Amino acid sequence: MTATITAFKASPDRGRGLARDMQVRWALEEVGQPYDVRLVTFAEMKAPAHLALHPFGQIPTYEEGSLSLFESGAIVLRIGESHPGLLPADRDARSRAIMWMFAAQATVQPPIVELTMSAMLERDEPWFATRQPRLEQAVRDRLSQLSARLGEADWLDGDFSAGDLMMVTVLRRLGSSGIVGDYPNLAAYVARAEARPAWARAFAAQRAVFEAASNP
Amino acid sequence: MTATITAFKASPDRGRGLARDMQVRWALEEVGQPYDVRLVTFAEMKAPAHLALHPFGQIPTYEEGSLSLFESGAIVLRIGESHPGLLPADRDARSRAIMWMFAAQATVQPPIVELTMSAMLERDEPWFATRQPRLEQAVRDRLSQLSARLGEADWLDGDFSAGDLMMVTVLRRLGSSGIVGDYPNLAAYVARAEARPAWARAFAAQRAVFEAASNP
Repeated sequence: MTATITAFKASPDRGRGLARDMQVRWALEEVGQPYDVRLVTFAEMKAPAHLALHPFGQIPTYEEGSLSLFESGAIVLRIGESHPGLLPADRDARSRAIMWMFAAQATVQPPIVELTMSAMLERDEPWFATRQPRLEQAVRDRLSQLSARLGEADWLDGDFSAGDLMMVTVLRRLGSSGIVGDYPNLAAYVARAEARPAWARAFAAQRAVFEAASNP
Repeated sequence: MTATITAFKASPDRGRGLARDMQVRWALEEVGQPYDVRLVTFAEMKAPAHLALHPFGQIPTYEEGSLSLFESGAIVLRIGESHPGLLPADRDARSRAIMWMFAAQATVQPPIVELTMSAMLERDEPWFATRQPRLEQAVRDRLSQLSARLGEADWLDGDFSAGDLMMVTVLRRLGSSGIVGDYPNLAAYVARAEARPAWARAFAAQRAVFEAASNP
């Protein structure tokens, strides 16, 4: 049964693979499952039909037969539980992979979103110059801790897992800020993930949506 | 095998059950499992022995035999997978319960933490009066959406699940702000959770730590 996901018709990231459909596309590519995409406008995301699928009016959603999910972490976990390639077979190792998924979403992502949203929305505010370094420091505190834990390893816990998939996509949200580059092992970690064929296929697929929207 | 969790020796919430060990205590009480608690000071949380358990230097951690986890969401999920009472048996319903766990952590919690941290740390800043209403509006936007989805139901998806456990603890972080009270079905939802015997036992256990620390 081919799943259907939703993604932005016109992604605000301009095809850089920072929107959260990237996590779901990448997970589906890692496990070799085809998928259909339904593109939604911002207006459609706030309309009743989409809110029935996603109460917070966001993307992505995931529909597979009678199952309907939102939250990229939960969707990636469902995909990982349904097909080999994203979660270890060993029960304890699987719990640790899921731990890194939650760490990406609940601990590493919030200061990154706060920093990038402030950079986008508060640039002309009188407090911007004072607050921005504090927000950046909060991000750096997290990255220092993550860098210390990763050390010289290729992935966060043994083989590549859904935990790495979530963490890399969160780190990529720092985009062109250059912050990740100050942590060489984290920069290499992101590059290692981007070198995976499944990542490249997912990136190309979301990029194609942006290019089609730009050259209608 | 009795698990050992960590909690604050002196919780900044002063025994109100807002620290994240509450989620793990509550989950263990729901499934009827005893547990041991190791209390840690702020200095101990940043020391190598604790960072080996929790790379971000926080509580709670969870140790069970050779397994060691951090991230309350991942710990609650592990407990729910190990014992009946927190996750539905039906596979799709289980994915939806996990979806609400991620929604609590990744979508509802961040604006709540931003609001409460700003109220705690930025009260004397010149921008406080301008930013605070915006942060509160962001919280209200999420609560409106959550309230609309919950409707007249007792719980987010069928019976009480780990998704409700995570969502209620996130909503309780709004504490004495009175915001949840503006959404009567959400206030009733939190009260319904607090009426569960397992919640009361978990609350009493963390409260006892605060009282012991206050009356040494």
